[in-house]
Amino acid sequence: MDQNKFVGSYDFVVEPFTEDFQSSMSWSNFANIFLRVAQYHAGSHGFGFGPMSKENLGWVFSRFIIDMQRRPKTGEKFRVRTWVSGIFHQFTSRLFDVSDEAGNVYGHAYSIWALIDLATRQPMDLLNLPNGSFADCVVPTTDFPISGPARFAMKSTEPAFSRTAKYSDLDVNGHVNSVRTIEMVLDLFPKEQYEQKRVRRIDMAYAHEAFCGERLDFFVDDAGSDVFNVCVKREGGQITTKSQITFEPR
Amino acid sequence: MDQNKFVGSYDFVVEPFTEDFQSSMSWSNFANIFLRVAQYHAGSHGFGFGPMSKENLGWVFSRFIIDMQRRPKTGEKFRVRTWVSGIFHQFTSRLFDVSDEAGNVYGHAYSIWALIDLATRQPMDLLNLPNGSFADCVVPTTDFPISGPARFAMKSTEPAFSRTAKYSDLDVNGHVNSVRTIEMVLDLFPKEQYEQKRVRRIDMAYAHEAFCGERLDFFVDDAGSDVFNVCVKREGGQITTKSQITFEPR
Repeated sequence: MDQNKFVGSYDFVVEPFTEDFQSSMSWSNFANIFLRVAQYHAGSHGFGFGPMSKENLGWVFSRFIIDMQRRPKTGEKFRVRTWVSGIFHQFTSRLFDVSDEAGNVYGHAYSIWALIDLATRQPMDLLNLPNGSFADCVVPTTDFPISGPARFAMKSTEPAFSRTAKYSDLDVNGHVNSVRTIEMVLDLFPKEQYEQKRVRRIDMAYAHEAFCGERLDFFVDDAGSDVFNVCVKREGGQITTKSQITFEPR
Repeated sequence: MDQNKFVGSYDFVVEPFTEDFQSSMSWSNFANIFLRVAQYHAGSHGFGFGPMSKENLGWVFSRFIIDMQRRPKTGEKFRVRTWVSGIFHQFTSRLFDVSDEAGNVYGHAYSIWALIDLATRQPMDLLNLPNGSFADCVVPTTDFPISGPARFAMKSTEPAFSRTAKYSDLDVNGHVNSVRTIEMVLDLFPKEQYEQKRVRRIDMAYAHEAFCGERLDFFVDDAGSDVFNVCVKREGGQITTKSQITFEPR
């Protein structure tokens, strides 16, 4: 797959002041890398945010799974590869893997995106856009080694935590940003949880946007086996995000 | 000054997904750049975190002023230069400027650091360390165009906001990180403040560390003329940070 011209490959290093308290690249900085790489790759093939916005279209981030044996540490180099794995009518899937300098893959990510008409907010049919050439970029992938999106029902009826969305939570669209939402979910767990366990997998389903000044309520279910289901609701009860966090022993 | 071998020069671009809602690089990502650059530059002259920690010494960030006519926008290239401007017995000052591709300087930053013995937590005498060679790096600077650290007394006796320090707030030392504290202070202001005004200057005085799980209380004084004084206290009342934020019209 490395040789495929539709697989993008991007090299990074864990910069100073980007780590968590355990010297691994913080989840927010690490998750941001996947989004960046998605934009680099889409941009290099002509379907990044820039050209899309000229056609009054915008990418909407719908699903994000990161599954890591570990995260890179201070000063460590790592490589992220990405490719479009499928195009459906209203969605496209993009995969990522993460490797060390020797080429050993130690993590993966999976994302689903929709392309919407910014005027009508309706999803476009990706099989017919732009000019039908999207489909040429697809690298069909049947052997991706992480499991797909989780499906779960929530039980908790009382929020475990609430906070108000603030200026620093916003992205360029004025919505609570998707990476910040990961941080908020991880912040539901005490420091001791991170001392005893490692986050193995983060599964985010972005359902609705949240805006500055809104109260966000976080509902948490302990699903057993180090798996926690989280639901984030806006004031009024609309679900903004469902998330499943899987820990494993350190 | 550009030609001085003790002035470090580092080029950046505003990466996708690092902006605030107004398409400028977010304050947290932007402030982080100065810390990174300080470490690159110190590292290149042999007194970065790595070599210091081998001698059981650590840099402590004491003061941070950022004064910007504007911040760079999505995709924009910018250059940060940095140099050590002075060494005193227990402190060293480091300056920064920010310029566009044409070399026009549009912002500055100022920082003060102490080097402590990690065992005793006592500051070292920088004029005598390491092996007396620090002083060789100093680029004396008398014409730096931003004003020095603010001094102010607080009036507010009731916190305007309180929150608990969480996992994502921590740096590699397990303390609430200095850039995150800037975010928390900026988040005291509503979105409308950012729509109407631009943050011109951020002045942070880091006094004491805060830890995960502690409640942080934020006291705010409107000092008039678009200047706000903020004091952050840990549970028990110890001041962790004093901050002055200066807005200007857009």
